[in-house]
Amino acid sequence: MFLAVDAGGTSTRAVLIDTLGRAYGYGRAGGGNPTATGIGPAAEAIGYAAERAMGDLTGSGQPALALIAMAGEKTAAFREQVVGRLAGLGLSEVVLDPDLLGMFHSGTPARDGYALIAGTGAVAARIRGGRLDRVVGGKGWLLGDAGSGFWIGHAVARAVVASLDGQGQRTVLTGLVLEKLGIEADPGTLAGRAEALRQLVSAVYARPPVSLAELAPLAFEVHDDRVARAILLDASAALADLLSAVRAPDLAGPVVVGGSILVRGMLAAPADLQVELVPIAAGHPVIPVSDGLVGAAVLVLRRAGGNVDDPLFHRIRAEITRLSTSSA
Amino acid sequence: MFLAVDAGGTSTRAVLIDTLGRAYGYGRAGGGNPTATGIGPAAEAIGYAAERAMGDLTGSGQPALALIAMAGEKTAAFREQVVGRLAGLGLSEVVLDPDLLGMFHSGTPARDGYALIAGTGAVAARIRGGRLDRVVGGKGWLLGDAGSGFWIGHAVARAVVASLDGQGQRTVLTGLVLEKLGIEADPGTLAGRAEALRQLVSAVYARPPVSLAELAPLAFEVHDDRVARAILLDASAALADLLSAVRAPDLAGPVVVGGSILVRGMLAAPADLQVELVPIAAGHPVIPVSDGLVGAAVLVLRRAGGNVDDPLFHRIRAEITRLSTSSA
Repeated sequence: MFLAVDAGGTSTRAVLIDTLGRAYGYGRAGGGNPTATGIGPAAEAIGYAAERAMGDLTGSGQPALALIAMAGEKTAAFREQVVGRLAGLGLSEVVLDPDLLGMFHSGTPARDGYALIAGTGAVAARIRGGRLDRVVGGKGWLLGDAGSGFWIGHAVARAVVASLDGQGQRTVLTGLVLEKLGIEADPGTLAGRAEALRQLVSAVYARPPVSLAELAPLAFEVHDDRVARAILLDASAALADLLSAVRAPDLAGPVVVGGSILVRGMLAAPADLQVELVPIAAGHPVIPVSDGLVGAAVLVLRRAGGNVDDPLFHRIRAEITRLSTSSA
Repeated sequence: MFLAVDAGGTSTRAVLIDTLGRAYGYGRAGGGNPTATGIGPAAEAIGYAAERAMGDLTGSGQPALALIAMAGEKTAAFREQVVGRLAGLGLSEVVLDPDLLGMFHSGTPARDGYALIAGTGAVAARIRGGRLDRVVGGKGWLLGDAGSGFWIGHAVARAVVASLDGQGQRTVLTGLVLEKLGIEADPGTLAGRAEALRQLVSAVYARPPVSLAELAPLAFEVHDDRVARAILLDASAALADLLSAVRAPDLAGPVVVGGSILVRGMLAAPADLQVELVPIAAGHPVIPVSDGLVGAAVLVLRRAGGNVDDPLFHRIRAEITRLSTSSA
C-alpha cells in the first residue's frame, strides 16, 4: 500500500493505492503549496488529505511510503514539517517530486514526452526517461508566464482601463469586469466613465496583483468580442511558443496539457483560438488532465519498484476517477 | 511675494517669488507626494522646502499665498496636514494644483497645448485655456503606463529572464541586470545560467514591483543591442500613442515633455529611437522641462491675478535656474 498526494496551490488530493492499482481511499483538502499558502497550512492540508485517504486503516495494511507531487521549491523547513505530519500517520518514508511529473504521468505512463500547464501561471517541460529534462516558464506573474491566467487577466484589465480612458477600443469586457469587481458606476455616460475608471483602478491596486488571473475566464466568456479575441490569440501563440521552447527534435511522445486556462479555456474554445499543439505533438496524442494525482500514484508505484505499464496505468486512472467522483 | 512648490515623488522644490518674477529663495527636500511617501512625510517635505525657500523673511515681505503642484489625489487628510504645516510659516492660503499644469507651464506660458510625462509612470494631457482638458494614462505600473520607466524596466527584466531561460534572444542586458541586482553567478555556463535565473527571480520578487523602473536606464545604455532596441522602439511608439490620445484637431500649441525617460532617455537617444512628437506638435515647439517648479510659479502668479506674458515667463525661468543651480 502506498500514499500518493497531489499538492496544488488551491487544493490537495491524496489516494491510497496498492501495486495492482486498486485504490482504497481518497482525501481532499485545501491548498498544499507552501509558497502559495505558507509552510504550516500547506503541511497541514497534505496531512489532512492523507488522513482522509487512509481512513481507519491499521496494522498490515498501513502504507510506509508517501509521494507528494508539488510545484516550487522544496525547502528543508517544509520537508521537515510535512515529514513530521505524515510520520504521525505511520508513514515512515516521504518523497517530494515535481508537480510537472505528476501532471505528465496523469496523462500517460510513457517515459518520454512533453507537459504544458497554464493555470494562474504557465510552464512547459520536456520529460525524458521519466525525468524532467528541460523546464521553461513558471517564473511567476511579474517575470513571464505569457499566456497564463494572470497574463490574460492582466491584459483584460488593461484593455478595460484603456477603453474607459478613451485610448482603447470599446469592448464588452468592460461591463463584465466592472460587474466582477462590484463597481456600479455607469460607464455609458462621460462622467460615469471617469468614475468607473477611478473605482476600477482603486479596486485593482487594493488586491494582490496575481488575483488579476480571476478576470481571465471573462475573455473566454466573450471570445467573439474583438478585444477579447485578440488577447486570447496572443495567449494561444505564447503558449505554443512556450511548448516549442522545450521541444527537442529527437524526442517525440505525447503532449500532456493541464491547468484551467488550457483545459477549461483554450481546449473548449473555437478551433482558431486553440493553442496550436498539433505541429509540436507531431502525430502523438494531446492529452488533457485535470490534476496530477494519477501521476503521483504512477510515481509512487515506480518508486517502490513497480512496473507501470498501459493496463496498470488505465486501472489506476479508472480507480482514482471512481473514488474522486463519488467523494465529490 | 508668493510661494510656489513642485512636490514630486522623489523630491520637492520650493521658490519664493514676487509679481515681477524675481526669486528670493529656493528650497529642496525629499519626496512630497503623499501617495508615494505617506501623508505625514510628504507634508513635512513640503514644509521643509518652503522653510528653506523663505529663509529668515519677516514682516511685510511675508508671502500669504502658496501653490503646490502635485500628482495624484488631493485627499482632505493630506490637505489638512499641509495647510497646518504651512500655516506655521505664516502662509494663510494654500492651493493644490495638478502637477501636469506645473510641468506644462514650466515649458510655456501658453494657455493651450500638450504635456507628455514619462518617468516611472507615463501620462499625457491636453491643456486648454490654462486648464486640464483631457488626461490619458497615469494609471500606475499594473494598469497601463506603456512606455514608462516601469514598463521599460519590466520589459528588460522579462527579456533577461527569457534569455537565461533559453526562450529569448541573447542580450547584453543580461550582464547589466545581474550586476545591477548584485547577482554574481556566471551565466556563461549552463549551470551558471540556471543559478543566475534562480537568483534573478528571487531578487525581483523580493523588491516592490515598481522598482523594476530602475532597470530602464540600462536599455538606453545599450541601445544598440537588438533586444534593448526593440524594447525602446515599442516604448517610443507607446508614448507617441499616448500623446495622440489627447490630441484634439482644433487645438495646436507646444508639446511640453518631462520625466527622466523622455528628457534624459528618449530625447538623448538616436533619432530613430525618439518618440515621434513632430507630427503631433504640428509645427509648434517640443519643449523639454526638468521639473514643474517654474510652472508652479506661473500658476501662483496667475492665481494672484498677475498676467504672465512671455517676458515675465522667461524672467521666472531664468531666476529659478539661477537659484536652483547655485543651491545645488
